[in-house]
Amino acid sequence: MGRSEGEPCLQVQVSQDMEKERETLQAWKERVEHELDVVVAFWLEHSHDQEHGGFFTCLGRDGQVYDDLKYVWLQGRQVWMYCRLYRKLERFRRPELLNAAKAGGEFLLRYARVAPPAKKCAFVLTRDGRPVKVQRTIFSECFYTMAMNELWRVTGDAQYQSEAVEMMDQIVHWVREDPSGLGRPQLPGAPAAESMAVPMMLLSLVEQLGEADDELAGSYAELGDWCARRILRHVQRGGQAVLENVSEDGEGLSGCLGRHQNPGEDTRPTLPEPSPGHALEAGWFLLRHAVRRGDPKLRAHVIDKFLLLPFRSGWDPDHGGLFYFQDADGLCPTQLEWAMKLWWPHSEAMIAFLMGYSESGDSALLNIFYQVAEYTFRQKFQMCSCYAVVREASPSTAHARHCFQTREPQDQRRYMLRLNAFIENMCSR
Amino acid sequence: MGRSEGEPCLQVQVSQDMEKERETLQAWKERVEHELDVVVAFWLEHSHDQEHGGFFTCLGRDGQVYDDLKYVWLQGRQVWMYCRLYRKLERFRRPELLNAAKAGGEFLLRYARVAPPAKKCAFVLTRDGRPVKVQRTIFSECFYTMAMNELWRVTGDAQYQSEAVEMMDQIVHWVREDPSGLGRPQLPGAPAAESMAVPMMLLSLVEQLGEADDELAGSYAELGDWCARRILRHVQRGGQAVLENVSEDGEGLSGCLGRHQNPGEDTRPTLPEPSPGHALEAGWFLLRHAVRRGDPKLRAHVIDKFLLLPFRSGWDPDHGGLFYFQDADGLCPTQLEWAMKLWWPHSEAMIAFLMGYSESGDSALLNIFYQVAEYTFRQKFQMCSCYAVVREASPSTAHARHCFQTREPQDQRRYMLRLNAFIENMCSR
Repeated sequence: MGRSEGEPCLQVQVSQDMEKERETLQAWKERVEHELDVVVAFWLEHSHDQEHGGFFTCLGRDGQVYDDLKYVWLQGRQVWMYCRLYRKLERFRRPELLNAAKAGGEFLLRYARVAPPAKKCAFVLTRDGRPVKVQRTIFSECFYTMAMNELWRVTGDAQYQSEAVEMMDQIVHWVREDPSGLGRPQLPGAPAAESMAVPMMLLSLVEQLGEADDELAGSYAELGDWCARRILRHVQRGGQAVLENVSEDGEGLSGCLGRHQNPGEDTRPTLPEPSPGHALEAGWFLLRHAVRRGDPKLRAHVIDKFLLLPFRSGWDPDHGGLFYFQDADGLCPTQLEWAMKLWWPHSEAMIAFLMGYSESGDSALLNIFYQVAEYTFRQKFQMCSCYAVVREASPSTAHARHCFQTREPQDQRRYMLRLNAFIENMCSR
Repeated sequence: MGRSEGEPCLQVQVSQDMEKERETLQAWKERVEHELDVVVAFWLEHSHDQEHGGFFTCLGRDGQVYDDLKYVWLQGRQVWMYCRLYRKLERFRRPELLNAAKAGGEFLLRYARVAPPAKKCAFVLTRDGRPVKVQRTIFSECFYTMAMNELWRVTGDAQYQSEAVEMMDQIVHWVREDPSGLGRPQLPGAPAAESMAVPMMLLSLVEQLGEADDELAGSYAELGDWCARRILRHVQRGGQAVLENVSEDGEGLSGCLGRHQNPGEDTRPTLPEPSPGHALEAGWFLLRHAVRRGDPKLRAHVIDKFLLLPFRSGWDPDHGGLFYFQDADGLCPTQLEWAMKLWWPHSEAMIAFLMGYSESGDSALLNIFYQVAEYTFRQKFQMCSCYAVVREASPSTAHARHCFQTREPQDQRRYMLRLNAFIENMCSR
């Protein structure tokens, strides 16, 4: 009898909680939608190079072009972003975005490769497309591939897709067969290390190319599993740390390189190695992989090791926010900027925890999303600017909050889009 | 009559002022001597690799080796430093220093060159001397040359001097004749830029090799003048800025590269371009050149443009200290760490202003020395550690002061030695 009286009460309570949660999520959805609108409007207004094609990516907060160099990563990401917006969100299905994406794609087709028909791409080009620097890594080529695949999806033009697939084959060859085409010298003292960035980036491409394409998804299935296994080997020290670099056999490495931890993301192209938010970013790449594979055990492992563990070690207990870099032994990281709070690891964290909640229903993950989101929006990271960072200081000292514009602006557009997509998805449940 | 009564008074006043100044300088001399003793004792105790030779240079504050990689710059500098200490300061004329310098020199002779007999040196070696990375610049070779020349000066062993002179010839060939041996790819979009670091470093070698050696000094005289002219071309914008990069014709460049300013020194090997304290460091290299050349007009120009101008633009008016990087247009520099206060630009500034005062007698320069020295010692930069930085914050927030150890520890030893030498020189006048 007591139970039958109690149950409706509990149901009412649960229903009220759910209603409250839906309202909270709805409020975040509106906030993120607004940010996405503001950010996209900013880039549409200021970043298009009408003369040479492609995009200016070094913009001040007022939209001023403070450097006209064109980073291939960012050209590729902006093409990808415009196509995604066009393809996924009704309000962005505008010719302006499509045309700009195509112009960016043409710029890449024409200038990105250093010595066509060879596939190696430049890292940075002059405004009119002459190569300035070449990195001996796969990342320019990965963003080239993402851009081409999205262009094919919105235009149906087969040329883009064949560019994407051919470049993907080249990247896989460099990673799994023979890296000599990347041009790295073989030095006897250089450690045979694997950076987590490489299998992460490849896994992201597997997802990109396989979307709604059973044939390609099938042909990359083994590659996706290989990437996931490689990423998982970066969980080291009895499961207590995600390390950025391991040996080619999946063992820990000595020295600073081996202790490097990456709570957030860093894809700043000038750094010698990628850095923190990687663990969280790898987390959401792996979560998607686990869902595609229908593997709840992997999903739980990923939430534990790539979401909760980096959050616990990377969150600043005194002032909030995620540190940029950490050392697995608690030594001071060698990067001067290690303790800075940059906006993009926070974006990675918001996406990761919302996705974790969405896939598991664990409200602890939703609460971490709220914690990160409230910190991030409270800090007023300059979302319309490029890079932004909150430097550590007593929260009351306004002068210590400082925003940076850097020459390799990450495009927060893609974070806003992802975030928007997840919240939309959850609010519509 | 009034005058004859006044003059003795004025003389007494001047004499009292001089006495007070001598006491102040004497106090600084003792402080710097003490720091030098502490710093040298630390490195003697913790940095010697008894097994493989050479030096550990990645040391924590407690002396712990946190990475055993051996950076060639730092091997060369430590050899140079030990030899200089042995040669110039009676209290360091100890077999321990000489033997360690020779062991370091042997390590360099045996391992520094990547493919002997070719001259190109590695940037970093494993503990046992295998090359890990090679930079496509001249700097490893410059520090190799400095080490070898000093070893010859203390040991008299001609092998060291022939190593130094041959390497110097190679460096000059790379800089003035043909850089292709450095291995940089020729990319059509790469700007033909001159970094101030190159003529600065060469000028420093001209001074090193020419010391008390009329024949070599004579043979490098034209090179020294060429270096000075090249450095002076970095004074741009109507004399209002010292820019780190200019075109090969000595004109300003566009974009972030062209606006980069370097109030202090930065020789952190991983940065794409050298950075601020360069102007001040270039200042004291040029001052010595002007003195050697007996050129008071150049001396005055250098004090104005390479000491006072960078100090005025680079000193933080709110919290004191020299910024790490600046943008000539007042935009936010692209380096995240631009506003950090690192110890070595402050050391460069102390040396530069003391030298400026020593050469000109202008007490304004001495007062700037005091200002920088008081700031630097008040901040308790960790002199026994490697890199140190004071992050900006309200001075009362202790948590915002943070010391960093990085994997490319600069050796503050050489700064302390230089500072010690200048103060000694001035106190003995």
